[in-house]
Amino acid sequence: MQKSLLSNINSPKELRLLNQKDLPLLAQELREFIINIVATKEGHLGASLGVVELTIALHYVFNTPTDQLIWDVGHQAYGHKILTGRKDNFHTNRQLNGISGFPKREESEYDTFGVGHSSTSISAALGMAIASQLKGENKQHIAVIGDASIASGMAFEGLNHAGVTDANILVILNDNAIGIDPSVGALKQYLTNVKKGTQKQDNIFEALNFDYSGPIDGHDIHTVISELERLKTVKGPKLLHVITTKGKGLKQAEDNQVKYHAPGKFDAKTGDLIVKTASRQPPKYQDVFGHTIVELAKQNKNIVGITPAMPTGSSLKYMMTEIPDRAFDVGIAEQHAVTMAAGMATQGLIPFCNIYSTFLQRAYDQIIHDVAIQKLPVIFCLDRAGLVGEDGATHHGVFDLSYLRCIPNLIIFAPRNEMELRNIMYTAQLGLEQPIAIRYPRGRGVTINWKQPFSKIEIGKGVALKTGHKLAILSMGTIDRNVTEAIKNLNVSHYDMRFVKPLDENLLHTIFKTHDTVITAEDNAINGGFGSAVLEFASENNYKNTIKTLGVPDTFIEHGSVDELQEYVGLDADSLNIIFRRFL
Amino acid sequence: MQKSLLSNINSPKELRLLNQKDLPLLAQELREFIINIVATKEGHLGASLGVVELTIALHYVFNTPTDQLIWDVGHQAYGHKILTGRKDNFHTNRQLNGISGFPKREESEYDTFGVGHSSTSISAALGMAIASQLKGENKQHIAVIGDASIASGMAFEGLNHAGVTDANILVILNDNAIGIDPSVGALKQYLTNVKKGTQKQDNIFEALNFDYSGPIDGHDIHTVISELERLKTVKGPKLLHVITTKGKGLKQAEDNQVKYHAPGKFDAKTGDLIVKTASRQPPKYQDVFGHTIVELAKQNKNIVGITPAMPTGSSLKYMMTEIPDRAFDVGIAEQHAVTMAAGMATQGLIPFCNIYSTFLQRAYDQIIHDVAIQKLPVIFCLDRAGLVGEDGATHHGVFDLSYLRCIPNLIIFAPRNEMELRNIMYTAQLGLEQPIAIRYPRGRGVTINWKQPFSKIEIGKGVALKTGHKLAILSMGTIDRNVTEAIKNLNVSHYDMRFVKPLDENLLHTIFKTHDTVITAEDNAINGGFGSAVLEFASENNYKNTIKTLGVPDTFIEHGSVDELQEYVGLDADSLNIIFRRFL
Repeated sequence: MQKSLLSNINSPKELRLLNQKDLPLLAQELREFIINIVATKEGHLGASLGVVELTIALHYVFNTPTDQLIWDVGHQAYGHKILTGRKDNFHTNRQLNGISGFPKREESEYDTFGVGHSSTSISAALGMAIASQLKGENKQHIAVIGDASIASGMAFEGLNHAGVTDANILVILNDNAIGIDPSVGALKQYLTNVKKGTQKQDNIFEALNFDYSGPIDGHDIHTVISELERLKTVKGPKLLHVITTKGKGLKQAEDNQVKYHAPGKFDAKTGDLIVKTASRQPPKYQDVFGHTIVELAKQNKNIVGITPAMPTGSSLKYMMTEIPDRAFDVGIAEQHAVTMAAGMATQGLIPFCNIYSTFLQRAYDQIIHDVAIQKLPVIFCLDRAGLVGEDGATHHGVFDLSYLRCIPNLIIFAPRNEMELRNIMYTAQLGLEQPIAIRYPRGRGVTINWKQPFSKIEIGKGVALKTGHKLAILSMGTIDRNVTEAIKNLNVSHYDMRFVKPLDENLLHTIFKTHDTVITAEDNAINGGFGSAVLEFASENNYKNTIKTLGVPDTFIEHGSVDELQEYVGLDADSLNIIFRRFL
Repeated sequence: MQKSLLSNINSPKELRLLNQKDLPLLAQELREFIINIVATKEGHLGASLGVVELTIALHYVFNTPTDQLIWDVGHQAYGHKILTGRKDNFHTNRQLNGISGFPKREESEYDTFGVGHSSTSISAALGMAIASQLKGENKQHIAVIGDASIASGMAFEGLNHAGVTDANILVILNDNAIGIDPSVGALKQYLTNVKKGTQKQDNIFEALNFDYSGPIDGHDIHTVISELERLKTVKGPKLLHVITTKGKGLKQAEDNQVKYHAPGKFDAKTGDLIVKTASRQPPKYQDVFGHTIVELAKQNKNIVGITPAMPTGSSLKYMMTEIPDRAFDVGIAEQHAVTMAAGMATQGLIPFCNIYSTFLQRAYDQIIHDVAIQKLPVIFCLDRAGLVGEDGATHHGVFDLSYLRCIPNLIIFAPRNEMELRNIMYTAQLGLEQPIAIRYPRGRGVTINWKQPFSKIEIGKGVALKTGHKLAILSMGTIDRNVTEAIKNLNVSHYDMRFVKPLDENLLHTIFKTHDTVITAEDNAINGGFGSAVLEFASENNYKNTIKTLGVPDTFIEHGSVDELQEYVGLDADSLNIIFRRFL
C-alpha cells in the first residue's frame, strides 16, 4: 500500500494525475527507491537525492517531454529516469548494455540532450528555445544547473547570450554549495551572501537581464511547485534559485557529501559503506599522483598543484591539506586552470596541472595557445585516460594522444606502472624546458610496493621489456599489462615506448630492422594516436615492415566495466593474443 | 622640435622622466607614429589608437617590466611595442622575420605573456600574481582587456577565481563597446547601463569581490594617471572601468570602427582607404560562404547561421542583414556557439556554425561531447584553415584535421575551390544524419564565375584530377592549386580526396594498386592529419607502396605572407615539384 504511488508511475502522465498533497509521500518513495538500488548497484547518489522534490515538481508542473528539460552534468537525473519509464531498468544503471548513468537522447524522449560534462545545459536549452520561437511553438525550456557548474565559463557564455534574447528559458540554479567537492569561487561566495540576505541588490543574474526569483527551499515541494507554476507564465529568460542539500534523506550522505557523491556499495538502511576487506592492494594511480606531488613539493618549493574542481578525484587533496598555499582548486574552469598554470610557469614556478583526460578537451586551445607556443614547462597530469568504464561515452579519455600529438613543443608520456608515473613526475620537476603531458588511467595500478626511490627518466627513451623474434609489440602506457599477459607464451619482442612524443627514433630503427612485423597497442583512438606516430615514422624512413595498429576503434564506446570494454574493443589479453599469433 | 618627445623614448625609463603635462603631446605623437606606419605597412589600427593614453599612463605609473602588463588579444599593443624598444622595428610589423603583430615573450621582456586569442589575460595575470605572492615579491600585475573579451567564458573563470584570492591584480576593462564587430550580450548591455548611470549598484564586478572603480574617460591622460596611482596602493583584486573610443584620433577610424579594425593601406592624412583598382578578382572564401548561406537559407527555412563575434570576418553579416532572425552573433563564446547549435539541431534546425579554425580549438570538447556523441547534424564552417599569414603562430589553422580526425561520427571535408565550398554547403543542408566540418582558407579563391548552379556531392567520394604513371599525388583542399602547378609538366596522377573522413576507400584501393608511390599534400600539421589517415588506410590494408606525407612540420610557424610561409614549409609549387620529381 505504502509503495503504491511510485509503482503506478511509468511516465509523467501518471504523476500528473496525483493529488499535490500526495507528492511528499512520492518523494519519500522515490528517495528510497534510489537508495535501495544504488546501495547494491553503485552509482552517483548524493546529487539525485538532493533533487528528488525538484524532479517531481518539474514533471508535475511542466508538460514533459513537449516542454524540454535539460539536466546539467546529468548525474542528478536518476529520479528523472525513474519517473520517465526507466524504473524497471534502473537496476542496470551504468552496466554494460544497461541504461546510462547520464541522460541520453537515444534512451528516452524525456532526455532532451545528452550530458556528462558540466555547464552545457544553458547553451543547449537556449538553442532549443530559439528553435521553438522560429517554429512558432509555445514550449518551455528548462535547464537545471548546479552552483558549481554555473560558475564555469561556458555557462556564463550561455547566460550572457540568453540575457539579450526573449527566449523562453528557465534556468534553475540548484544551489547545494558543492559539485563533487565543495564549490569554490567568487560566484559561490556571492550566492552564499544572497542566501544570507547580506547581498545588496541588484543581483548578478538580474544584471544579465534574467528575471531572478528565490532563493527557495528545494525540499519544500509545495513551494517549488507554486513557484514553477508562476514562472510558467513569465516570458523571456528567468532564473530560479533553489536551495537543496546534496544527499538529502540519507543522514550519512548529507553529513559526508564528498564521500557519498558516488559511494560504491553501502547499507541502504544505515548508510554504512560496505568496505571491502581486501588484502593489500596496489594503489590507485590518482593516489600515486597525490602522494608523490606532496613528496616532491616538500623538496621543491617552486612546485604548485592545480585542479579544476577535482581535489578528491585527482587526489590533489593531500597537497591541499599539507601545503595549502601552493595547491589550488580553481573550480570547474579548465581553461582558466591551464592558462593560470602558464602564467605561473613564466615566473619560474613548476605547475602540475591535473585534469581528467576527457575534461582537458575543454582547455585544448589554452594548451596550444598559452602553453605550447610559449614553450612553458607546465606539467599536465591527465587522469582517467583511456577507457574509464561505467561513466561511458562522455567520459572516456581516448582522444588525448590524438589531439595532443599534433601540438609542437609538447612531450607526451604514458607510464606503464606506478613507478614510471612517480619517476616521470620527479623528472619533470627537475626542470624541463617545454611542457609535458602525462596520461594515466582510472583505477588501480599493479604494484604493492610502489613507493620506491626516485630515478630520472631520459626524455624520449623507450625500453625493451622482452626480446623475441619476428614480431615486435610496441605498447603505450598501462595497456602494457594486457600485452604482457597476451605474450606470456609467445616468442616475440615487447617494448614500452613510453613517449608518444618525442618518439625514441633510435629504438624504432632497431626494432624495424630486426622484426618483420610491428604491432602497436594503446587505449587511445586508433585515428591519429600512438600507432599513427609509428606509421609516420615508418613512412618518413621508408620502412616496409608490416605494421598493425591496435587501439580504440573510430566509434563512441558506451559504458560497462573497464575489463568488459577492453574486451569489446579487442584490447584484452585474450584478444591481443589471438591477433599476435596471426602474425607469427 | 615637435617630434622630439617620442624620438627620445626608447624604453619606459625615458618616458617616466617626462613631466606629466607633456604626456598629451606624447600621445599625439604616438598616435601619428602608429597611423603613419600602419597606413603603409598595414596591420591592426583602431584598437591601438584607442589605448594610446592608457598605454602611456600604464608605463608612466607602473614600473614595467618588473610590474607585469598583459594586453588581452594583443592587437591593441602597438603603442606598447613602440614605447618599449621596438619603435625602430615597428615598420617590420607582421612581416616575415619582422616583429609580431601581437605581444610575444621572445620579443621583449615587456611582453610578459604571448597573446593572440582573446580573454586569456586575467588567468595569466592571476597566475603571475600568485607566483609573486609565493615568492614574496611586491609587484603589480595588470591585465588590459576589452569589453568584448571579458564577456567570454574564460575571462569569467579568471574573474571568478581571482575574486576569492588576495592576489594583487588590476584588471583594466577597456570598454569601447566593440571587438572586431560591435560587442553583444547581456554583460555589454549592463556595462552600457553602468556608463549611463542607470545601473543600480551593487555592481557585477563587486559581486565577484573586485574593488571596482570607474567608469573614467580613457582619453583624459591625467585622470587615468591619477586613478592608476591610487589603485597602486589598493591591495587585492581590483577592476578599473575605462571608456575609450576605438580608432581615436583618426576621424574615419572613429566613424567606421569595423572597417578600420585592420583597414589595409590608407592615406595617413585623410584616412581614406587606398582601394586597389584591380581587375575582377575571384571572391574571398568567406564571401562564398556568406553569400551562399543567404542563398540556401532563402530556400530552406530550417537553416540558421551562428558566429562567435565574427560577422564581418566570416561574412555571416550578409545573412544577419537579410535574414536577421535566423543569424546569430553570440559574442566571443565559441563553446556556447557550438552547444547552442547542437541544441538547435535536436529540434530539426540546420545550423551552420562558422568559426575560424584556430578558434574552434576553444570549443573542442563541445564538438565531441555535445555534437558528435549525439550525431547531431551541425554544419561547421571553419574559415582561416591552413596557414593564415601575417597573424602568425597564434592564428594558423593547421591543427584542425588532426584534432577533428579522431572524433567519431564526424565528416571532414576540404573544398579545393569556390564551387566545391558552395556544393558541400548545399549538400550538407539537404539533410545529413551526422555533423560535418568544412575547412577552407583565408583569402581569395581561384574562380571568377564561382556562382554556378548547385550540385550535390557524394559523401566520402574523392575525384581524379589528372591521370598519370607511377606516382599519385593526393591533395586535400586548396593546396590543390600548388599541386596542380607543380605537376604541370609531370606525368603523374593527381586526386582531390576531398573528404579526410570518411576516406574514399574504393578510390584509395585503386590508387594503391596502380601506383608505386603515393604522396599526400595538405596545409595541416603533418602529425595526425590527412596524410596519417592515408597511412592508417595503407597499414590496415597491408599496402607496401612508398608513401610520403607532406604538410606543416611539427613546429609553430611564425608570421609572413601565406606565399612566404608555404615556401618556408615546402608546400609551394616549386618545392613540391622538386619533391615529386624525386619519386619519378
